[in-house]
Amino acid sequence: MDTLRYASPDDVETAFYEALEKGDLEAMMALWAEDDEILCIHPGGQRLSGHGQVRHGWQEIFSVMPSLSAQVGDRQSWQSALTAVRSLTETYYPADGQEPPGDVVVTHIYVRGADGWRLLARHASMAPEEDILAGDTPRTLH
Amino acid sequence: MDTLRYASPDDVETAFYEALEKGDLEAMMALWAEDDEILCIHPGGQRLSGHGQVRHGWQEIFSVMPSLSAQVGDRQSWQSALTAVRSLTETYYPADGQEPPGDVVVTHIYVRGADGWRLLARHASMAPEEDILAGDTPRTLH
Repeated sequence: MDTLRYASPDDVETAFYEALEKGDLEAMMALWAEDDEILCIHPGGQRLSGHGQVRHGWQEIFSVMPSLSAQVGDRQSWQSALTAVRSLTETYYPADGQEPPGDVVVTHIYVRGADGWRLLARHASMAPEEDILAGDTPRTLH
Repeated sequence: MDTLRYASPDDVETAFYEALEKGDLEAMMALWAEDDEILCIHPGGQRLSGHGQVRHGWQEIFSVMPSLSAQVGDRQSWQSALTAVRSLTETYYPADGQEPPGDVVVTHIYVRGADGWRLLARHASMAPEEDILAGDTPRTLH
């Protein structure tokens, strides 16, 4: 596979969700930084670090869920010259008509290197159905 | 309270765990970046963003748990001139002899500004009792 060059964090993000939807492991791994310090935390999971563990994690996920289509929302971003942080929520709709499992809260960290922007870290966790912690964040109704 | 100046991400991290142990809300809030884009995700929680929500979140936590002593381990770090990422696990031992609730997996993002290093983001989530990904399915039993 050719080495791709992402001109912005948004380009990496787009490629990330495309790889997820296609269940394309090679495309997924191509967008991570070459750094051994890459890290990925799936919802309810331990930290995976380095290309070996991160690849294995996605491989396991794609073997169970070969296509994952996420609706992304609630974006917030912070950016400097060489680093970008994107916070967002992902909503997954199961294909089989089951209830959606709830939103996933995600923090992505992108870094800019000689070969453009890449994903350095992803931390994902399940959001509560209702907001337990803060009485005043979005989602709290009545 | 005087504005403190942290010379390194480690200094901010030390101050963070001291504030947690003392349940000191002002000390906690003093170590975050002044940026409105600060964000904090507590285990099982929604994203809190900006000083108002982040403060409110800690206030709620400290009102229930006035002192939180975390044993920190499994550190991994990535650093550039103006940004640092620290990944670690926190283990909390309840004072009342109950079972520890399990480890918390944490991603901290620190940024360097005119007033030294500060915390830009914290994403914390519960780690599984056993490593699921190594095994393979998330929490799905029988």
